[in-house]
Amino acid sequence: MTAPVQDAIVLLGDSLTQGGWEAHGFAQRLACESAYVRKFDVINRGFSGYNTEWTIPVFEQCLARRNEQSSAQKIRLLTIWYGANDATLPGFRQHIPLEKFGANLTRLVNMVRDPSSEWFSSETKLFLITPPPFNVHQWVAGTNSAGVPHERDRDFKVTAEYAQKVREVGASEKIPVVDVWRALWNIAGQTERGLTKYLSDGLHLTGEGYSVGTKQLSNILRDLLTRNPFVFKVVYEELIGAIKEYTPELYYENLQEVFVK
Amino acid sequence: MTAPVQDAIVLLGDSLTQGGWEAHGFAQRLACESAYVRKFDVINRGFSGYNTEWTIPVFEQCLARRNEQSSAQKIRLLTIWYGANDATLPGFRQHIPLEKFGANLTRLVNMVRDPSSEWFSSETKLFLITPPPFNVHQWVAGTNSAGVPHERDRDFKVTAEYAQKVREVGASEKIPVVDVWRALWNIAGQTERGLTKYLSDGLHLTGEGYSVGTKQLSNILRDLLTRNPFVFKVVYEELIGAIKEYTPELYYENLQEVFVK
Repeated sequence: MTAPVQDAIVLLGDSLTQGGWEAHGFAQRLACESAYVRKFDVINRGFSGYNTEWTIPVFEQCLARRNEQSSAQKIRLLTIWYGANDATLPGFRQHIPLEKFGANLTRLVNMVRDPSSEWFSSETKLFLITPPPFNVHQWVAGTNSAGVPHERDRDFKVTAEYAQKVREVGASEKIPVVDVWRALWNIAGQTERGLTKYLSDGLHLTGEGYSVGTKQLSNILRDLLTRNPFVFKVVYEELIGAIKEYTPELYYENLQEVFVK
Repeated sequence: MTAPVQDAIVLLGDSLTQGGWEAHGFAQRLACESAYVRKFDVINRGFSGYNTEWTIPVFEQCLARRNEQSSAQKIRLLTIWYGANDATLPGFRQHIPLEKFGANLTRLVNMVRDPSSEWFSSETKLFLITPPPFNVHQWVAGTNSAGVPHERDRDFKVTAEYAQKVREVGASEKIPVVDVWRALWNIAGQTERGLTKYLSDGLHLTGEGYSVGTKQLSNILRDLLTRNPFVFKVVYEELIGAIKEYTPELYYENLQEVFVK
């Protein structure tokens, strides 16, 4: 059984987080030699297909309660990355209304931030991440792995509203926001056509495969990410930049290795 | 603080293990979508520069003691990969005599396997990994990052003896051995020239940089692994093959995701 010799970075989210262990994914890059190896463990709690509502009872199980904390591994840094599924349009299974999405995000935050929470941790720094822009034109032109055309179950503007809600929760809760939506949108020249160019594979992972089984989804994601790790590059660079700016004490260059020789 | 919702794969070793989080490294490949994501966490306990002797007191800290185990994360699979540093020649700092190396490996094994050990875990399956072949000709022709020629501090035949010792410990302790030494040697056509060809970059990580600082070493390793992930490919394929053969209940296809929807 493991002892908590290294503190942890925990990545909470949907398929965008789950895919973070692919080569050049943001989990892999955080874990590797040039970042947190021998400093922090990186723990991936990405659940493909999940929205914030389904995550709450799962995240409760992922955290140590007050009476278990003395022997538990400290989470020094927690990223919360949702919106891609919550922004599914009304009537679709994953849809969470915008205000409820914001309330759920706040609830996830307060599970570790509120001193009265049974999962409270004074030492955990949080970062919120916005969902990437959704390219509806590309989406409806495609099919899932079973060859069935995608439903128009998401919308560029709607996902943008959910990204904005993430920013608002960040502002009201005073939590840094890693703005993947804005970073990608700017890189794409703020046009949907530009977005298509930059996210020709990677953007699909925002939505693709939600109607297929997990195993198929895994195969799709792996394939996409292998061909286009661009999204993750942006996420990693943005996240590391935010860590350096907002929590420099957790920036890897400012940490010692746990065991030195 | 984390709760132990997922069991763990723990990778114990030297720089060969520490580098496992690089893109296409064996830790990354174990962790990702096509293997253990949402099934087991992968925990890297690779310590570059370490031999078995220095590892023992560190590994003791990495494991939960009997009275801490009720709330600790289960280690379902433990790889122990040493020899590359222990095989340093007598007179050099990292040298561990061959018999002592075998005894140390056995001690590491029994820390989790011996029911009287305070770190005993009945549910942990172990795998030993042999060090890769050492290419002495390439080594002495090179320099470290400070431009200083490498000392002849290791030897092909000596490292081969340490690989053999790993096999012997595996046989006597009835633990599967992931024979990276033999796999690479066979792929290289069982010639040192062939070895040079296949390991022109990757083999260096067996020994390179042990006289330089950790930061420099990290840079070297990253660079080498980016250019040549060959060693890791072999390690991953050999390890997954061994898991499938010896502990099929731990093969990823035979595991359910912890949280499904």
